[in-house]
Amino acid sequence: MRVVNIKSFRLSLPTKVSTTEGVNDVVVIGAGPAGLSAALYLARFKVKVLVVTKDVGGTLNEAGLIDDYIGLPEIRGPELGRRMAEHVMKYGVPIVTDEVINVVKTHEGFKVITKSGREFRCKAVILAVGSRRRRLGVPGEDKFVGKGVSYCAACDAPLFKGKIVAVVGGGNAALQAALLLSSYAVKVYLIHRRLSFRAFPIYVDMIKERPNIVTVLNSVITEVGGKEHVEWVKVKDRSTNEEKVIKVDGVFVEIGSEPPKDFFLRLGLEVDERGYVVVGPNQETSIKGIFAAGDCTVSRCRRKFDQVITAAADGALAALSTYEYLLNPS
Amino acid sequence: MRVVNIKSFRLSLPTKVSTTEGVNDVVVIGAGPAGLSAALYLARFKVKVLVVTKDVGGTLNEAGLIDDYIGLPEIRGPELGRRMAEHVMKYGVPIVTDEVINVVKTHEGFKVITKSGREFRCKAVILAVGSRRRRLGVPGEDKFVGKGVSYCAACDAPLFKGKIVAVVGGGNAALQAALLLSSYAVKVYLIHRRLSFRAFPIYVDMIKERPNIVTVLNSVITEVGGKEHVEWVKVKDRSTNEEKVIKVDGVFVEIGSEPPKDFFLRLGLEVDERGYVVVGPNQETSIKGIFAAGDCTVSRCRRKFDQVITAAADGALAALSTYEYLLNPS
Repeated sequence: MRVVNIKSFRLSLPTKVSTTEGVNDVVVIGAGPAGLSAALYLARFKVKVLVVTKDVGGTLNEAGLIDDYIGLPEIRGPELGRRMAEHVMKYGVPIVTDEVINVVKTHEGFKVITKSGREFRCKAVILAVGSRRRRLGVPGEDKFVGKGVSYCAACDAPLFKGKIVAVVGGGNAALQAALLLSSYAVKVYLIHRRLSFRAFPIYVDMIKERPNIVTVLNSVITEVGGKEHVEWVKVKDRSTNEEKVIKVDGVFVEIGSEPPKDFFLRLGLEVDERGYVVVGPNQETSIKGIFAAGDCTVSRCRRKFDQVITAAADGALAALSTYEYLLNPS
Repeated sequence: MRVVNIKSFRLSLPTKVSTTEGVNDVVVIGAGPAGLSAALYLARFKVKVLVVTKDVGGTLNEAGLIDDYIGLPEIRGPELGRRMAEHVMKYGVPIVTDEVINVVKTHEGFKVITKSGREFRCKAVILAVGSRRRRLGVPGEDKFVGKGVSYCAACDAPLFKGKIVAVVGGGNAALQAALLLSSYAVKVYLIHRRLSFRAFPIYVDMIKERPNIVTVLNSVITEVGGKEHVEWVKVKDRSTNEEKVIKVDGVFVEIGSEPPKDFFLRLGLEVDERGYVVVGPNQETSIKGIFAAGDCTVSRCRRKFDQVITAAADGALAALSTYEYLLNPS
């Protein structure tokens, strides 16, 4: 009998790499932290799993330096996405790059249909397609994503110590972002299109009390500019139509996000008023055999906090529930 | 104006290291993945946070090779704990090694009292004290933890490819562990002290159908033995009292876990029938200002799945809720 020596252990990886042919147990749609973590857990559960995704890494590709994924300090978003994908591929899980346009019920489970016309058969589906942060839609914005334009103050605030930043928005998220940034940046412009904020009064009071937060109401950003990185924004007063240039090192856009609502409705899934897929305690959706994880979801009862670590945890839980569903689909 | 160059960014770390004196904003109790992730998020929220813990790393110290924390493949438990703690300490968060014996309400918030007599004042508390996996309590068990004795099949099953293992227990967790292990190990002994299983019938049926699972009923393990690693278990038939030695490479103990129920009751917290702290959608407990995260909790609305990634996610969410509580304690 061979003695188990854990010290000398390397993982036993599958000798055969899975193929995309035949019926998969599970198709995971999306390869951000949620989808990849789900795929990892499913592979470890010895489930035949296939990942189909528009882009490997998902929203990580838009992130700058990430320092809140505990244990992996100061890692760039795309690099973290690459490491996560490699972790999954080590288990022989195929990752197919293609856009899923529909998921159709079949006698054996589901058929996942892509834009390029491919079809993947499976018994269960995990949706982890993420949610697109709402853009300003102004010149320069896309160019400077990750180069001063950020959609996550909780993620990127510490990068702006001693800098000047603009925050755009007027809800709780925007005011929280401004408050947090005011602890790092020397000056924070809080730019809002309306004349008053739609946020908790306590946040509005606190904003007023912070000497380094300057509110710019009834105004919108019309352009983001700079050379390699953000250097200024053009701000227009909506009453006078006057434009002025404000020098900033960063722009935090906090005007909500947009899940792919139409896609979810096409599938017949229950979504909330903003278009997020509603999930229950096991990450299950309103359709039996379809689970969901990460930024594209809203839980019936757990507070939404879209972070790398929470998305990856959702993925792990969705994988467990899907595994149990495969064992006992009734 | 200095141009922000994210490419050349390193994080701005605090120049002054926090001290443990005076009133902290938050005391985090426990330094496993949940507590450390909470501390990391709080530090990034610029909250004055202190961690008090019996041992740095928590349950990670009992884990063998971890390969399900996405992005950090094949890392040993204590090493992951060390990296997580370093990540938190980078932000100047003090980690005090001491055992907390009580948390008492004060006019300013709470007083966290330790075994050695120290008291830490704070406005809010995050409990992340973990849960101890129930032991067999037999000779050899403790000696071989991480050397063949495991309390987590989902974590360690892939390490036992081609090996022989024993699983102890008769509930759903034990049967699931046996099923999962039967996909890796060549032979699985499922040892249960009673004459029948208390698990879902579907699992009982599946156990019977797997040719490499051998059920050993009405029996208990009385000793775990080996040289450097597990090589055998002694199994006693409870009717005849006969003992026999079975050669195995691993023992998976799946007989539940024990949160520190008495500690929670002393604090006046609502616990469930097994002793887990009950938390709501924001990781809040039944006491205002006390939040909880990780293995020691049970959620009102989310399925319990005790993994490194889920504990760390709980910690992040608890930190956000605590941060908001500090902003607006009403």
